[in-house]
Amino acid sequence: MEVPKASDVLANELRERILSGEYPEGTPLPPERELAVQTRMSRTTVREALRVLEVQGLVRIKAGRAGGAFVQRPGEESVATTLDLLIRGRQIRPASVHETREAIEPSCARLAALNRTAGDLRRLEDADEAIAAGGSLESFLQANVDWHVGVAAAGHNEILTGIMLALSRAIYTVTHNEGFVNGEVRAIAAQAHRSVTRAIRDKDPDAAARRMSRHVHAYAAAALEVDERTAITLPDTD
Amino acid sequence: MEVPKASDVLANELRERILSGEYPEGTPLPPERELAVQTRMSRTTVREALRVLEVQGLVRIKAGRAGGAFVQRPGEESVATTLDLLIRGRQIRPASVHETREAIEPSCARLAALNRTAGDLRRLEDADEAIAAGGSLESFLQANVDWHVGVAAAGHNEILTGIMLALSRAIYTVTHNEGFVNGEVRAIAAQAHRSVTRAIRDKDPDAAARRMSRHVHAYAAAALEVDERTAITLPDTD
Repeated sequence: MEVPKASDVLANELRERILSGEYPEGTPLPPERELAVQTRMSRTTVREALRVLEVQGLVRIKAGRAGGAFVQRPGEESVATTLDLLIRGRQIRPASVHETREAIEPSCARLAALNRTAGDLRRLEDADEAIAAGGSLESFLQANVDWHVGVAAAGHNEILTGIMLALSRAIYTVTHNEGFVNGEVRAIAAQAHRSVTRAIRDKDPDAAARRMSRHVHAYAAAALEVDERTAITLPDTD
Repeated sequence: MEVPKASDVLANELRERILSGEYPEGTPLPPERELAVQTRMSRTTVREALRVLEVQGLVRIKAGRAGGAFVQRPGEESVATTLDLLIRGRQIRPASVHETREAIEPSCARLAALNRTAGDLRRLEDADEAIAAGGSLESFLQANVDWHVGVAAAGHNEILTGIMLALSRAIYTVTHNEGFVNGEVRAIAAQAHRSVTRAIRDKDPDAAARRMSRHVHAYAAAALEVDERTAITLPDTD
């Protein structure tokens, strides 16, 4: 028989109050001592429950005199973190990451063309310039994922943005390969990005989706080809 | 200045060992007492660190004599949980849920047609029968999301499956509406599902993607129309 942990029971209760809006964002939860008295649970149990909510991104715990647990709205960041754990912890195939991008990014580009603000467009154009500026592999990859997350953010769909934020870390990792990201690949990516950015600027959703689809597909095919070549060339060290 | 919490430092350290495979799945972590001695941290701090990992789905804590913290691989379930928190906690618009489905599900259907096993197909056909069997709104909605998650699972992409598992809860919630899910909507959905299932059975990725796209789009348009109608009909109670 599975007996629920006292700290989980309390965490569930507080979580429902946060999600329902009964405790709005920024509200301090009752102090630990008070929660312990109200629930007849030990201070350790109460602290554990608050820690659970903190890990889930539902409260921010501040130390010190004016400290305590303050309600925060769950953010894209927490989705990104768990997706990142899944991808790293399961040694997920690079192909899965590419497939997911191909599924999601054309829709992100379409929504960006429909919903982008002037500020969103500026952010994309800045990322385009950073990519064109050259620099180390790391700065190219960072500018690259910044642009992709920027497209998602410009679509103003929080779920897709959370997913892209998580994928961007995985994309960074699976494409962190000098053998793949050479000058030619960079030039092609820079050009593809600019053409998607133009479609988003011109509010042309079909062109944005089509160009993004072509770009992500080509990039994935090239990356996978290099992976296979590298895998074949490597000596067997098992 | 932000001083990192001792329990976070320990949780980060253990997390890296789990993700790198140094502690493989099923391994017991060292007992609390031993970790406290090794790290010179208090038992409470050690317990807190283990709790953090438990919430992140990286260890399973068993009570009792043969208990302790056992390593587990991060699963689709933890992605589903955080995405669910995001959707509920941010009062995300039903339109965002539908947009995300339209982005993802055609690709899931395409992958299912390419990668499905005989067992996957059986699961989809079972869900098709459950939908045709009629019954309460709840049993229809459950059979409906079972089929959609089944299509994702048949694609054998863990990231997309995790995302669909999370979305399925949101889909259940935003379509839990008698006014929308009437007999006609059910019949149309049942027919659409069967036609996608057939394409997956016949290993026809283009037909699977096209039919799924049409189905999800029509369903979303109908659901949003009902939402608007309902929103307009409701008296203003603010």
